Amino acid sequence: MARPRKTGKLRTLAKFATTPEPPYYAVIFSSQRTEGDNGYRQIAERMVELASQQPGFLGAESVRGTDGFGITVSYWASAEAMAAWKGNVEHLAAQEMGKQKWYEHYELRVAKVERAYAKPSA
Amino acid sequence: MARPRKTGKLRTLAKFATTPEPPYYAVIFSSQRTEGDNGYRQIAERMVELASQQPGFLGAESVRGTDGFGITVSYWASAEAMAAWKGNVEHLAAQEMGKQKWYEHYELRVAKVERAYAKPSA
Repeated sequence: MARPRKTGKLRTLAKFATTPEPPYYAVIFSSQRTEGDNGYRQIAERMVELASQQPGFLGAESVRGTDGFGITVSYWASAEAMAAWKGNVEHLAAQEMGKQKWYEHYELRVAKVERAYAKPSA
Repeated sequence: MARPRKTGKLRTLAKFATTPEPPYYAVIFSSQRTEGDNGYRQIAERMVELASQQPGFLGAESVRGTDGFGITVSYWASAEAMAAWKGNVEHLAAQEMGKQKWYEHYELRVAKVERAYAKPSA
């Protein structure tokens, strides 16, 4: 289970998600941010906090480059857990803000993880 | 199909992969680089070129932060296409270099994409 931690001012997850043996689900979210913050940072921080409290949340990994292109992958125990998060009222409002203000372009892909490997080996 | 393009000195793919309707496969590679280049950049560039020539390669998306943590997701038409790339001789040598020199830690997850959404809509 990913543990939120304090890193500077931003509450973030550990870099690597600690996931169980497959199968489980991954939501791959690739996005290009618009210019300016427009309330993004505060809500993004809140979404990390809220997602990590959801039943079936396994962890997330996220990187954004200086050009505003980023990839966030969140991991979920079941299709039901993903659906519940997708329909969370506070998250729905954030999704709408994302479409309207924060992302110039995004691609969201829902995938079922079938195999996993690591270094160091688990 | 992702088109390699020149960006500065590094040959890279377009930021967003243009993928077909699901199902298809995703290889999610999260990694923490070691200090120093150790031949990484040149080989990474070569792997992008080589992967994009593989049958069944659909595209890739990649970001690395200034702290050396990165996520690369490559997309493949079939399990057979992924297996062929995994077993490519030049790629096998690069994988070994990755384990020995370039990555302090990595997680590689193979997943089947079941659904996809985008803004702007496809």
